[in-house]
Amino acid sequence: MTAQGFLLLLELVGVFAFALDGALVAMRSTHLDLFGVVALGIVTAVGGGILRDVLLGELPPATFRTWYYLATATGGALVAFWGHRLLARMARPIVVFDTIGLSLFAVTGAQLAVDAGIDPGQAILLGGLTGVGGGTMRDVLVRKVPSILTGGLYAVPALLGAVVAVVGPLLGISAGVAAFAGGVVCAGLRTGGLLRGWRAPRATLQSPEELD
Amino acid sequence: MTAQGFLLLLELVGVFAFALDGALVAMRSTHLDLFGVVALGIVTAVGGGILRDVLLGELPPATFRTWYYLATATGGALVAFWGHRLLARMARPIVVFDTIGLSLFAVTGAQLAVDAGIDPGQAILLGGLTGVGGGTMRDVLVRKVPSILTGGLYAVPALLGAVVAVVGPLLGISAGVAAFAGGVVCAGLRTGGLLRGWRAPRATLQSPEELD
Amino acid sequence: MTAQGFLLLLELVGVFAFALDGALVAMRSTHLDLFGVVALGIVTAVGGGILRDVLLGELPPATFRTWYYLATATGGALVAFWGHRLLARMARPIVVFDTIGLSLFAVTGAQLAVDAGIDPGQAILLGGLTGVGGGTMRDVLVRKVPSILTGGLYAVPALLGAVVAVVGPLLGISAGVAAFAGGVVCAGLRTGGLLRGWRAPRATLQSPEELD
Repeated sequence: MTAQGFLLLLELVGVFAFALDGALVAMRSTHLDLFGVVALGIVTAVGGGILRDVLLGELPPATFRTWYYLATATGGALVAFWGHRLLARMARPIVVFDTIGLSLFAVTGAQLAVDAGIDPGQAILLGGLTGVGGGTMRDVLVRKVPSILTGGLYAVPALLGAVVAVVGPLLGISAGVAAFAGGVVCAGLRTGGLLRGWRAPRATLQSPEELD
Repeated sequence: MTAQGFLLLLELVGVFAFALDGALVAMRSTHLDLFGVVALGIVTAVGGGILRDVLLGELPPATFRTWYYLATATGGALVAFWGHRLLARMARPIVVFDTIGLSLFAVTGAQLAVDAGIDPGQAILLGGLTGVGGGTMRDVLVRKVPSILTGGLYAVPALLGAVVAVVGPLLGISAGVAAFAGGVVCAGLRTGGLLRGWRAPRATLQSPEELD
Repeated sequence: MTAQGFLLLLELVGVFAFALDGALVAMRSTHLDLFGVVALGIVTAVGGGILRDVLLGELPPATFRTWYYLATATGGALVAFWGHRLLARMARPIVVFDTIGLSLFAVTGAQLAVDAGIDPGQAILLGGLTGVGGGTMRDVLVRKVPSILTGGLYAVPALLGAVVAVVGPLLGISAGVAAFAGGVVCAGLRTGGLLRGWRAPRATLQSPEELD
């Protein structure tokens, strides 16, 4: 399998995981029907990749150039819709799928940005953005405060995973190995943050009025 | 009138209808002033088309290449602002204008995507996205759960209208006839869904906690 | 300093002011941690410029072509995070920083649009959009009704500032002077609107149900 084919495969696994995640969130929120569930699954699954392609100027986005992404996203959402009882038996499925999608997109997004000629620093941010983009659109549409803004490390694992994926090849490590290591770092930090309740420092405001 | 001129005319009718719709929604929501009403009218009217042009890579979007779109959108919003008493006498004006805009944008968006070389399947999705894009931005800005996610068929009529507009020409039907038929299908399904309360199946969750 | 260098400097001042503003808003809203504060600061600071570059088709956006913007935005957000006690002693800091960012982005956005070949009318709207874009993304993410839609002139000063910045050079005034005058007009109108409670006319609805 070529490096490009492997990257596509990783992306499609990420799309599937995010579609499951988005569809499950849709079913938990206010009374969405089949089409609302599929729509939210698709937005979650392909939103980050579309955002990445728009910002890289690679238009139309990959999502619209082939049918793989949309078919995978629709499939994932339908599996969640019809299989939610089965999924519910798994431990915390939403968070698990969200973590898989986050890790894969952060890593592939960052490497695609480097391939497009973006400098390492901004490529890392673009990778992070690719990772959190779909979930953030999902949260805005169902009117949750987005995960990127709330506690429980979300954007930080994505950015650190992107750092590994971008810096690794600069140090002579193969892109595939660096992507794998970056994904493990992202998923590990996110999972650790959730299980152990790792938290970032907060500003200690005495009262909200203090600032206005 | 050329096919292209006819498509532009349809688009401008859609822009006007969506501007009326967006402005009326703005007046119903929390105490917006004249400029808030016009801003929401414009976003609703041109949001879907801008999204389509960004995704097709046709930049700057048509909205910024000529003055027609913005002038039509501003005009529609002002008509709604000063004429809302008159509009209020019509039956359910918001829904009517929203349906007109949805149908026209879904059909024209899908045909423009095909013209840009997008495959039929993805062109249909892009048409649907053009149709629901402006209304979704409107809903996010006034903090409603977007129509695409709630019951009462919204995205499905747009997608089916786009199917007719895209598949018709593949079967030898002229683009104009296919666009007209697609618009009728979309408007009919949306109206039928509203009047008859057609609903899509829902997931039967026992409790929301089941999924997390 | 070249005209282009001066425009970049103005942009970076706007980025810094918006980053302070976004970070302070983040600290006031629901319990955001360090990374949430920085993320919201960055979105507020670079959101309008990214939107402008996407719409102009200048991709990747300036934000991703150099490190200046992201470094400035991150710096501004960190200053707000660690210095909020000091900032709180200033009068209404959020509004002050927001006004500075709004004025600078409206004016530079409009002039960049003209440079990209956009007609004056649409360039003015694009300038206004550049000004209000970052703040609108900030408001959507923290689930406030966006400032552009609520009372207290927000989009109007941005648009009038953009008018001055665009029309000035057409009348033979140098771009730098026109930009400065446009910024003063925008900041003055916004500040006057806030201090004096200037308001735009509202629609006088008898009841919300009137419209549906």
